[in-house]
Amino acid sequence: MKVVKFGGSSLASGKQLEKVFQIVMSDPERKVVVVSAPGKRNPEDIKVTDLLITCAEKSLANSNPVEEINTVLARYRDIAEELSLPGEIIADIEDDLFARLNGDKDKPDRYIDRLKAAGEDNNAKLVAAFFRKREVEAYYVDPKEAGLVVSPEPGNAQALPEAYERLFALRNQPGILIFPGFFGYSEEGEVFTFSRSGSDITGSILANALKADLYENFTDVDAVYSVNPYIVEKPKEIKELTYREMRELSYAGFSVLHDEALVPAFRAGIPVHVKNTNNPSAPGTRIVAERENTNGPAIGIASDKGFCSIYVSKYLMNREVGFGRKLLGILEDFGLSYEHTPSGIDDISVILRENQFDGEMEKEILQRIKTELHADEVKLVHGLSLIMVVGEGMRRNVGTMARASKALAKAKVNIEMINQGSSEVSMMFGVKSVDEKRAVKAIYEEFFTAVTV
Amino acid sequence: MKVVKFGGSSLASGKQLEKVFQIVMSDPERKVVVVSAPGKRNPEDIKVTDLLITCAEKSLANSNPVEEINTVLARYRDIAEELSLPGEIIADIEDDLFARLNGDKDKPDRYIDRLKAAGEDNNAKLVAAFFRKREVEAYYVDPKEAGLVVSPEPGNAQALPEAYERLFALRNQPGILIFPGFFGYSEEGEVFTFSRSGSDITGSILANALKADLYENFTDVDAVYSVNPYIVEKPKEIKELTYREMRELSYAGFSVLHDEALVPAFRAGIPVHVKNTNNPSAPGTRIVAERENTNGPAIGIASDKGFCSIYVSKYLMNREVGFGRKLLGILEDFGLSYEHTPSGIDDISVILRENQFDGEMEKEILQRIKTELHADEVKLVHGLSLIMVVGEGMRRNVGTMARASKALAKAKVNIEMINQGSSEVSMMFGVKSVDEKRAVKAIYEEFFTAVTV
Repeated sequence: MKVVKFGGSSLASGKQLEKVFQIVMSDPERKVVVVSAPGKRNPEDIKVTDLLITCAEKSLANSNPVEEINTVLARYRDIAEELSLPGEIIADIEDDLFARLNGDKDKPDRYIDRLKAAGEDNNAKLVAAFFRKREVEAYYVDPKEAGLVVSPEPGNAQALPEAYERLFALRNQPGILIFPGFFGYSEEGEVFTFSRSGSDITGSILANALKADLYENFTDVDAVYSVNPYIVEKPKEIKELTYREMRELSYAGFSVLHDEALVPAFRAGIPVHVKNTNNPSAPGTRIVAERENTNGPAIGIASDKGFCSIYVSKYLMNREVGFGRKLLGILEDFGLSYEHTPSGIDDISVILRENQFDGEMEKEILQRIKTELHADEVKLVHGLSLIMVVGEGMRRNVGTMARASKALAKAKVNIEMINQGSSEVSMMFGVKSVDEKRAVKAIYEEFFTAVTV
Repeated sequence: MKVVKFGGSSLASGKQLEKVFQIVMSDPERKVVVVSAPGKRNPEDIKVTDLLITCAEKSLANSNPVEEINTVLARYRDIAEELSLPGEIIADIEDDLFARLNGDKDKPDRYIDRLKAAGEDNNAKLVAAFFRKREVEAYYVDPKEAGLVVSPEPGNAQALPEAYERLFALRNQPGILIFPGFFGYSEEGEVFTFSRSGSDITGSILANALKADLYENFTDVDAVYSVNPYIVEKPKEIKELTYREMRELSYAGFSVLHDEALVPAFRAGIPVHVKNTNNPSAPGTRIVAERENTNGPAIGIASDKGFCSIYVSKYLMNREVGFGRKLLGILEDFGLSYEHTPSGIDDISVILRENQFDGEMEKEILQRIKTELHADEVKLVHGLSLIMVVGEGMRRNVGTMARASKALAKAKVNIEMINQGSSEVSMMFGVKSVDEKRAVKAIYEEFFTAVTV
């Protein structure tokens, strides 16, 4: 039995839904279909979920989101008309949307979550109606009835352990089950959404709960690429990679699959297959627990900008028990999460995502570090990018670092930071953001093209 | 005015004291002479300080340290006889030693400190007597009278700020001042020693307090070497290096100069000159605030074994604010100081000196991390060595990492860890201890010999 998830662009139009239908029907193992909200048909389109967020925000500000709600309805109507679905489905969706819009606004973030969830919920109803119109036994599944219970955290809900037990019963339901992605219900019966792109999470939870043989994740690319195609033209496709490799790649800019989404599949050891709705015969990328290493040391390169570094130096720092802990404690007081802490003998740098703080906070933090830790020097450096070179077993491969750093030197990229030694499947470089693309290209050429010197 | 410090081997015999006398007299700027306890005359010798520690320990265990105390007295007697000093100097030393031995044992660590300090204190008296015998105006300085007040921490005393103010008055004393190294007195008038090899610290404090122009540190090597001569034969000598470079080198196995000792000189900007008592015409090594970079990226390589790594992995760790701080908090509960924390996305390693804990503690720590932090995996890896490649401006030098890591790859050394990005003057590699020497040799050849490929 397979759980199949389709992303927003796979469900953006009637034509796309036809493809989805063909894909599901071509394999009787495809029993559970998780759907996103309608995505973009073209680059000018706005995703239904984004429209719904604007609706919620306007409504909370006591402004009437007429335009947005009509655009949302038009999206569903276009699909329904293209597929000649009965009119009542749109009437139902309209009723649902207005009910949510006129709902209780006492807790604004819960109100927003209810509206956000409408995109997937109504799309699942529409897709089920479409399958039935094609005379296939298919049912919309209400996550509340099915038992997808989650923690009451708006925009960041987590499935509770009992959800897995309760969802298992779906295995015994007849027909094809169309399940809306992205949200669940709290014990009290309130809607809470997962983090953004959370339909991937729903699919993974269902695969785990129903003990599926495979979790297929249909998107709009033929495979996971070994590097960002905006940086390197026509990069190599990855046929197979491990959960760990995918996780490390998705950390730094690989957005093919939501990184939280891998957890439930990973825990149950269920392979994840990333495929293309628009080219279902392409082999896609399989994410598995173990793979044979045939690619050389690296399987992928990811990079992300927007990092900064707080540098703290103090003579004889390394003699001071508790220094690092106190430093991290100050950052925690400001709710900052940090990524890495390379350290010298008498200095330590903390690498953080810079979108976490504004100018005022920045000054305050530096001041507190200076005075509370009696630091000799404290400074903040902006504009860093992190580059991850990922591959199973890379660490056991003598010479990988030499190849990567030589490639960077040849490309005249100064390495601001190296973090290696904890993960066995990655090496991380920090470079100035202006050097990021050049650095990624250089490493790609070293590891992925035949022309090695 | 110069402060001149002589190490134990420079004061191990009458012949050595002759050299010391010649050195001091050859430059009228050499006003303050800091002396260690008599060191080894040959590899079989036991240092006077080590004998005194044994005396203290035996005495605390109610065993009479006759043999050791006689060996100590014999060392002083040999020197006095060699130099034909009057007999009363040995009688004085004998009285002093027995007074300390029969002193109050209520606080054992203070008792040990009083005995440890006897080595330097009595040697200063002997050296002063020798200078006077040569008809030079020279005085033993009592650190208590001179005002070297320290914190009451046995074996780890720190000079208090007022010590600097009070010691300044020594400038106006006539003659050559012979000052015992290694200890000071608390406000209450009790002896407390600095950390081991603390005579270097005394010299540095005096240089700072007396606003000396230079702090000369006489030892038994011609210069600070660019690498451990036990690993590489006849390594290059370093003519000049900065405080920062010296500090990073002394961290990992460079024992020429005590690393705490640089602080007072560094704070006052006083150059430190390491010279050889046995070859005073050799240029030695100057430690300064800034230097011209003429050596290429690296000036020295240091390495040290005896490290271990605690590896902790947890899926989605990097989303968890406070994870690192909690982990370091657990280590702190056990009084452990850590060196570095390389981290991946979902894992972090903590590098520590392994002499800090025993088997029981090890198990307890791993258990606490596992249960309190809900870690997926926790493991401890023993037998690591750290290698520091040090040089000012190294970080701005594109390609340095490439050269170092290529050299390691050629020597078939697997890099377990790289920590780079905080210190601007060093790169650090972690390797298995069995690979340490091979690794150091390979890096030395890359950076210090002309044969670069």
